[in-house]
Amino acid sequence: MKLVENAAGRLVPTEVNGRDAVPFAGVGGHRPAGRRAAPRVATCLDYPDDGDKRVGSIAEALEAVGLADGMVVSSHHHLRNGDAVANLVFDAAAALGRRDLMWFPSASFPVHANQIRHLEAGVIHHIEGSMNGPLGDYCSTGRMRGLGVLRSHGGRWQAIQDGEVGIDVAVIAAPTADAFGNATGDRGPAGCGLLGFALADSIYAEKVIVVTDNLVPFPCLPWQIQGNHVDVVVEVDSIGDPTKIVSGTTRVTNSPDRLRIAELAARFCAAAGIMRPGFSFQAGAGGTTLAFAIYLRDLMRAAGVTARFARGGSNRYMVEMLSEGLVEHILDGQTFDLDGVASIRSDPRHVNTSPFTSYNFHGKGNFASMVDVAVLGATEVDLEFNGNVVTHSDGRLLHGIGGWQNCLAARCAMLLVPSFRDRIPVIVEEVTTLCGPGELIDVVVTERGIAVNPRRQDLLDAVAGSGLPIRPIEDLKAELDRICGSPQPVPRSDQPVAVVKWVDGTVLDTVWKVG
Amino acid sequence: MKLVENAAGRLVPTEVNGRDAVPFAGVGGHRPAGRRAAPRVATCLDYPDDGDKRVGSIAEALEAVGLADGMVVSSHHHLRNGDAVANLVFDAAAALGRRDLMWFPSASFPVHANQIRHLEAGVIHHIEGSMNGPLGDYCSTGRMRGLGVLRSHGGRWQAIQDGEVGIDVAVIAAPTADAFGNATGDRGPAGCGLLGFALADSIYAEKVIVVTDNLVPFPCLPWQIQGNHVDVVVEVDSIGDPTKIVSGTTRVTNSPDRLRIAELAARFCAAAGIMRPGFSFQAGAGGTTLAFAIYLRDLMRAAGVTARFARGGSNRYMVEMLSEGLVEHILDGQTFDLDGVASIRSDPRHVNTSPFTSYNFHGKGNFASMVDVAVLGATEVDLEFNGNVVTHSDGRLLHGIGGWQNCLAARCAMLLVPSFRDRIPVIVEEVTTLCGPGELIDVVVTERGIAVNPRRQDLLDAVAGSGLPIRPIEDLKAELDRICGSPQPVPRSDQPVAVVKWVDGTVLDTVWKVG
Repeated sequence: MKLVENAAGRLVPTEVNGRDAVPFAGVGGHRPAGRRAAPRVATCLDYPDDGDKRVGSIAEALEAVGLADGMVVSSHHHLRNGDAVANLVFDAAAALGRRDLMWFPSASFPVHANQIRHLEAGVIHHIEGSMNGPLGDYCSTGRMRGLGVLRSHGGRWQAIQDGEVGIDVAVIAAPTADAFGNATGDRGPAGCGLLGFALADSIYAEKVIVVTDNLVPFPCLPWQIQGNHVDVVVEVDSIGDPTKIVSGTTRVTNSPDRLRIAELAARFCAAAGIMRPGFSFQAGAGGTTLAFAIYLRDLMRAAGVTARFARGGSNRYMVEMLSEGLVEHILDGQTFDLDGVASIRSDPRHVNTSPFTSYNFHGKGNFASMVDVAVLGATEVDLEFNGNVVTHSDGRLLHGIGGWQNCLAARCAMLLVPSFRDRIPVIVEEVTTLCGPGELIDVVVTERGIAVNPRRQDLLDAVAGSGLPIRPIEDLKAELDRICGSPQPVPRSDQPVAVVKWVDGTVLDTVWKVG
Repeated sequence: MKLVENAAGRLVPTEVNGRDAVPFAGVGGHRPAGRRAAPRVATCLDYPDDGDKRVGSIAEALEAVGLADGMVVSSHHHLRNGDAVANLVFDAAAALGRRDLMWFPSASFPVHANQIRHLEAGVIHHIEGSMNGPLGDYCSTGRMRGLGVLRSHGGRWQAIQDGEVGIDVAVIAAPTADAFGNATGDRGPAGCGLLGFALADSIYAEKVIVVTDNLVPFPCLPWQIQGNHVDVVVEVDSIGDPTKIVSGTTRVTNSPDRLRIAELAARFCAAAGIMRPGFSFQAGAGGTTLAFAIYLRDLMRAAGVTARFARGGSNRYMVEMLSEGLVEHILDGQTFDLDGVASIRSDPRHVNTSPFTSYNFHGKGNFASMVDVAVLGATEVDLEFNGNVVTHSDGRLLHGIGGWQNCLAARCAMLLVPSFRDRIPVIVEEVTTLCGPGELIDVVVTERGIAVNPRRQDLLDAVAGSGLPIRPIEDLKAELDRICGSPQPVPRSDQPVAVVKWVDGTVLDTVWKVG
C-alpha cells in the first residue's frame, strides 16, 4: 500500500479499497470534478400498477433486487442500538450464500456485533461507515479484510452523490410505510423521528428495499422516503427494540466537572455576543452538550433573547425551548427521545432535515456554515486545536464521526471536553487521529478554563473582561501534564486499518492497527 | 427532415431539434436505457458561508450563472397567466445580447406572448413546452425556428431526468423564499400553492435562480424547493399578478349540457362500483370536471362512501370534501383557487406532490396508476377511443398536455366531452393529433350518452341495467354527424411544427403547420 503525506502532514494511502483516493489538500484546497452519480433509469413497466411492491421476506427482497456477490449494501442508523434490520439482512444474505459484500451503514452500533461472524465467514468483505464499539475494535485490531472508511454524515452524502460509493442495494428500516414504499420515521412502534440518513441511499442506490413493521394504507404520510425510489417492500414482525431506539427520557450529566464545562460554554456564548436575537446554535445529545443547552436556555430567558433556529439532534430540552418560544424552529437531523419524536410528528416548526440540506460540502452551500455556534465533544484536542473524535489515545477506533466534521463549518465551533478521561489528558501534543483541522476549531472549553484559538482574535477581544477563565491552550496542557505526567506516546503500527475522510472526500488521516 | 410511421401509424420525425428521437413503439413498448442525468458536482467553496446568495437583479443573476448563447432556460407555470418572471428573464437576456436560447417552460400562457418578439429577434430559438394561446398559434403557423415539443407533466420530468433536455439555467418564481434559496409557493402575495413543476428543474439544472417578491429570514418553511440546489436569489417588486395566478373563487359550469355530462360521469362511477369505500379519484379544474366532483360528492354523501385520496389540482370543492371527511387526503399537483392555497398551507392531509411522485413513467411506479378514476377533457376523440388535447380539428395548436397523458394510467380514464364545439363534432373518424392511445381511454361521456371502450367488458358488465345511456361510440358519432354533417377533413401540410411526446419519451405524433 502506497502512503503519502497529505497537506496536514499525515501519512495516508493513495488507494482505498481498490479506488484511487485523494490526499487531504488543506481546508478548501480540493475542488471536485465530474458529475453526480446517476442510477439507471427505471420504468413503470417493471413495477405493479396498483403500487403494491410487497414481497414475503427479507430473503425474497434480496433476491428480487438481484443481490450478488461483491455488492454494496447500505443501511441507516436511525434505530441506533435498537436496530434489528441490518442484522436480519446479513443473516439472510449469508443464508442465500452471498459473499464479499460491502456493508455501508450510516453508522453501526454494538447491536451490530452480529456482523462479526459474517465478516469472519466472508459474507461481508468490509465495512465503510462509523463503527462504534465491537466492530470498531474488530477493525482496529486488523481483522477486517478491507480498510474501514470513516466519513461524516455530510461526507457520506458527498461520497454517494459523487459516485465514490455506488450503492447496489439500500435497505431502509421504516417505522411506518405503505406498500408503495413511502416511509416515515415519525410514527409507529419503532418510531425514531426521521429517516434523513437514508435519504441519499433512497435517491442514489440502484435498488431500494423498505422494511417495516407498521404497514399503513397508501399514502403513508409524511413520506420522508418517497416510494417512487423504492423497489420492494417487506413486512417483518419488528424492525427493532423501541427502548434502544429512542430513550424515553433525556439524561443530562450530573458530573460537577461537566456541568462546569457546559456552564462556561454557555457563558462564553453570551459574553462573546454569539447569543444575540435571531442567532442559531447546534448542540448534540451528549450529557455535557445537553447541559450546555439548559444553561444557554436560562441565559436566553434572562436576556430575553430568542434563537431563529436550533439544529438538532432534538430532545426534550430543545422541544421545550420551541414550545416556550425561545427557539423559533428546530432543524432536526435525528431525534433522540420520545419528546423529540412527538414534536417532529406534530409541530410544523420542528423540521425534518437531511445530510443534504445540513452538511453536504459538495452542494450549493449547506446549513452548517450558517449556524452561529456548534457545541461538540472530542476524544483529544492538540496544541494546534486539531480535534480527534474517532480514536482514543491508545489508538483504538471506538467512535464514528457523525456530523462533527460538518459542524466545524459553524461561525464558532466549540469543543467541550473534560481535562482528563481515565486519567489521560485530553489536550495532547498531537492528536492520535486527525478528524478536524485546528483552523476550524475556535474554542476549547474544559472545567479548568477556556482556550480560544489565536486565529480568532475577534472572539478573544469580545470576551476580554468577561471574567471567564480564558487561557492559552499551552497553559491548560501544561497544567494537565503537571497533574498526570505527560502520557507516554503509544507507538503506532505501520498497518492502516481505516481512513478518515474529510468533508470534501479527501483522505485526512489513517487509523493504524493496534493490539 | 426524415419521417417514419410509428406504432400508432403516425408519421413522426426521427430527429427533433438536433437530437435523435425514438418513434412511439406502442403502449409499454419502449424500455429506457442509460442512466439519469447528472449535473456537475458543486462545492460549498463557491457559495457564501452565510448562505446569502442574493444578487441585485435578474440580469445580474443571469450573468452570475453564466448564461450563454444557445443555452436552455427553464421556468415553471404555477403562476399561470399571472406570471411576470419568465417575461422579465427573456427581456433581461435580450438586453444582455444573448441569442438562440431554448425556453423550456412547464407551460406557457397568453401572458407570455411577450416572448414572440424575442423569438422574432432571435433571442429565443424555440420553445419546448406547452404553448397555450398566442404562442401555440405562433408555432402552429410555422414561424418558430425549431420544433415545438409537447410533453405531459410526467413526460417533462422524464425528459429532464433522462437527460433528453439538459437545463442550463432554471428560473424559479417563488412566492416566498429566503436568501439561501429555500422557497415555497404556499404563502406570500403571489401565493400559488405549490411549486412541484419546478422541482425537477431545481434538482437537475446546472444553475438555479430563485426570483421572489417575498423574502423571509432563513429558514423559509416549508422548503418546497431546497436552497441547496439554488445558485442565486433575486428580489423583485412583483413576481406576478395574484388575480391571474389563482382565482378567488372556483367557477363551475352552468351549461346544462356540461352539467349533464358531469352528472352522467358521476353516476357512472357509482354504477360501475368505482365509487366504493377507500377509492381514489382525480378531477381537473375545468368547469365540467368541477361539476363532476360536486355530483360525485353528493353521491358519496348519500352512499356514505369516503375516498382514501383525491388527486388535485385542488380547489374549494375538494377542500370542502377534505374538511367534511369525504376525502381523507388531497395529493395535490397544483392549486387553483385561494381555498386550495389556504388548505395546503395549513392542513397536513393536503399534501404537496410533484410530477416525480405522481406522473414520471421512468420511476419505480407512480401515483397515476393507483388512481381508481381520472376524469379528463379532450378536444377530439375518435372511434378507436384515441384522444387529442393539443389541437383543434382545424389543426391549430392551442393547448398543452398537462397531466392528461399521465392520468390515462388510472384504472378508469374517462373523457368528459361535449358533443360539439363551435358546431364541430368532438367524436371524429380519426383524431387530428394523437395524444392518448385509445387502449388507455376507457369511457367517453357526452351529454348524448356514454361510450365504453369495448376493451373494458368489465365496465360494460358492471353498468348493465344501471339505466345509464350506454351507447357504442359509433352510434354517438353517427348521431352527431347527422346533426352537423360529417366535417370536411382539413387538409394538412407536410411541414412539422411540433411533436407530441408520449410518457416514455417516444414521439407519438406530429403537429403540422397550418394557415
